[in-house]
Amino acid sequence: GHPVYRDMPTTIFEKMSARARETGAINLGQGFPDSQGPAEILHAAADALLNRSNQYPPMAGIIELRAAVAAHYARHQGLDLEPQEVIVTSGATEAIAASLLALVRPGDEVLVLAPLYDAYLPLIERAGGVASVLRLTPPAWRITREALAAAVTEKTRFLLMNNPVNPTGIALRDEELALLAEYCVTRDLIAICDEVWEHVTFDDIAHKPLMGFPGMRDRTVKIGSAGKIFSVTGWKVGWMCAAPAIATLLARAHQFITFTTPPHLQWAVAEGLAQPESWFTAMRADYQASRDRLVEGLRAAGYVVNASAATWFVTIDLPASGIALDDVTFCERIIDEAGVAAIPISAFYPAHPVTHLVRLCFSKSDTVLDQAVTRLAAFR
Amino acid sequence: GHPVYRDMPTTIFEKMSARARETGAINLGQGFPDSQGPAEILHAAADALLNRSNQYPPMAGIIELRAAVAAHYARHQGLDLEPQEVIVTSGATEAIAASLLALVRPGDEVLVLAPLYDAYLPLIERAGGVASVLRLTPPAWRITREALAAAVTEKTRFLLMNNPVNPTGIALRDEELALLAEYCVTRDLIAICDEVWEHVTFDDIAHKPLMGFPGMRDRTVKIGSAGKIFSVTGWKVGWMCAAPAIATLLARAHQFITFTTPPHLQWAVAEGLAQPESWFTAMRADYQASRDRLVEGLRAAGYVVNASAATWFVTIDLPASGIALDDVTFCERIIDEAGVAAIPISAFYPAHPVTHLVRLCFSKSDTVLDQAVTRLAAFR
Ligand SMILES: CSCCC(=O)C(=O)O
Ligand SMILES: CSCCC(=O)C(=O)O
Repeated sequence: GHPVYRDMPTTIFEKMSARARETGAINLGQGFPDSQGPAEILHAAADALLNRSNQYPPMAGIIELRAAVAAHYARHQGLDLEPQEVIVTSGATEAIAASLLALVRPGDEVLVLAPLYDAYLPLIERAGGVASVLRLTPPAWRITREALAAAVTEKTRFLLMNNPVNPTGIALRDEELALLAEYCVTRDLIAICDEVWEHVTFDDIAHKPLMGFPGMRDRTVKIGSAGKIFSVTGWKVGWMCAAPAIATLLARAHQFITFTTPPHLQWAVAEGLAQPESWFTAMRADYQASRDRLVEGLRAAGYVVNASAATWFVTIDLPASGIALDDVTFCERIIDEAGVAAIPISAFYPAHPVTHLVRLCFSKSDTVLDQAVTRLAAFR
Repeated sequence: GHPVYRDMPTTIFEKMSARARETGAINLGQGFPDSQGPAEILHAAADALLNRSNQYPPMAGIIELRAAVAAHYARHQGLDLEPQEVIVTSGATEAIAASLLALVRPGDEVLVLAPLYDAYLPLIERAGGVASVLRLTPPAWRITREALAAAVTEKTRFLLMNNPVNPTGIALRDEELALLAEYCVTRDLIAICDEVWEHVTFDDIAHKPLMGFPGMRDRTVKIGSAGKIFSVTGWKVGWMCAAPAIATLLARAHQFITFTTPPHLQWAVAEGLAQPESWFTAMRADYQASRDRLVEGLRAAGYVVNASAATWFVTIDLPASGIALDDVTFCERIIDEAGVAAIPISAFYPAHPVTHLVRLCFSKSDTVLDQAVTRLAAFR
């Protein structure tokens, strides 16, 4: 055996952000807002930091946050979770790592859908698993029964999926979710659902958790992220929800990965999750306006853009925009020549990449978006 | 293969704290102070939370904290580290997990010294390694050349050690450290040094990092914890320091475990590490006074106590105190009958436990310590 990490590169998000910091480029690469974060959430955290305990909270999280996550999912997604079925983690990345390290046995196959987040494959490998990659392609990125049948084998034990999808900005369609659920039930798979973008949906699309589909309640690990919901990506507060038999294993992995998560941030997130529906509607409307601003600006500059149904991302279609460069070359050129950092979609494929799409992050101020558009217009 | 976590219990620290919360017992089990944390450190964090970015910092930590750790170790321990050799983690537990997951290959042997922290063995196993346990015993807990020779084999690739030692409160002697260093060099081992208690030393003992011994500079991963240094165990800010060839692998594991650590806490810790020597001296003096208060109180009540050279812990010797109970039974009885939670030393042995010592945490207010002494006096 060779160490998994020997030949592994630094994640594309870090690499691009580092180059943006060095060159002063506008960073539309790594997904994060350029705002400070909502004042009410920040003040809740500062208040807890100064007035509550800064010592070890319970390993699985403060009960108030576990209850707030359960209540939030009951209210927003019709799920019926007990607080004990929620385990707080230091970000969704830790939740994915803990889930895989807790559940995967050597040789287990894990079905994943490409394009995929770059942490998935190294974590599956490090857990001793083998990834089976179902490759999806534009423009529809559709999951079909035939492709699924070809990707699932006798050894498949898990589905690790992301919905809404980073980097495409797609929200999976009901029939695709039903198909995935059917496969999980008939093949006795556990679904590990990275649903960190569940709240960042547009055009009145309501997120549908896979856990809510027939037969999925007790075979799903549902992963969420306060960083995405509350626009504070640096906080690293996430959670994983699962029925008790699975949650027990997840907690045992978690206790030896980070053990626990800063209590003042947990208090603030618990308060945030209890915000009225209008809070989440306003947050979505703000990001939708930013999406529209970037899309309209780029289109006016002659780019062909795939607008998104969710996430903080849109993609530029290079050939449709009349640009004869692959995604990696385009990203290399615009960071140096236009002063804009972006992410090539090929970074989300382990093999046979789609190479004509470039991801841009729009969770930025109007001024920054306008300046990026001006620069990208001049680059053409 | 079976999943590592299937048969694993919840960590003893969490179990005892949960029982203390339920029963209202005074919690001298899990190691944490009952104070809020130093005002200057808390205010630095609150200030950064409200006035600096809450978005993703660089994956390996903000450069200011990496530089502060390097400068701190230069000043306090005579080490010569570059900021690039420091990787910030979400607590020392993540640093230990990342080190093992980054470096251990299937079948590699990892030498550990028992009594040991309960995260070590599951993490070694989850990384595919095999632990070789060198069992140490009271009263001296001495590491001998003979015992080391018996524990190190052809397959040994790593030494995972803790110094100062939790739960014994021992600081390893110079000749033991020299012996360990000699073994690492002659056997070509990498030492993973959990030195989270490096600053909590008493009676003018200065911590000696294994990394400072001849030949160890580039074969050591040195792990530290802001939670222990600054009495904020809930913050979960730690770091791992290593020469570039090793640090690169550590960063790759870290990027897919938590990715990064809250930036406001990083800013506060960077400020804290730059405090003058007098700050650390005062912190140590405070804890030393608490140690002495608990030890004197227990001794006056007829207990035989091993005072510690470091950590937040002392141990009671049960038979020497005239108590005919093993450590687990004693801990069970005092939580229910005296209202005091403690940790049995046997929890730190995977096999052949030492069973006559009980660990008590003294990082508590005088009032709490005095009340615990009163309760334990009445229990006798
Ligand atoms: C952890 S860095 C990646 C952040 C993110 O979700 C993205 O940019 O896709
Ligand atoms: C992570 S809980 C354990 C804390 C600690 O260091 C101890 O009590 O030994």
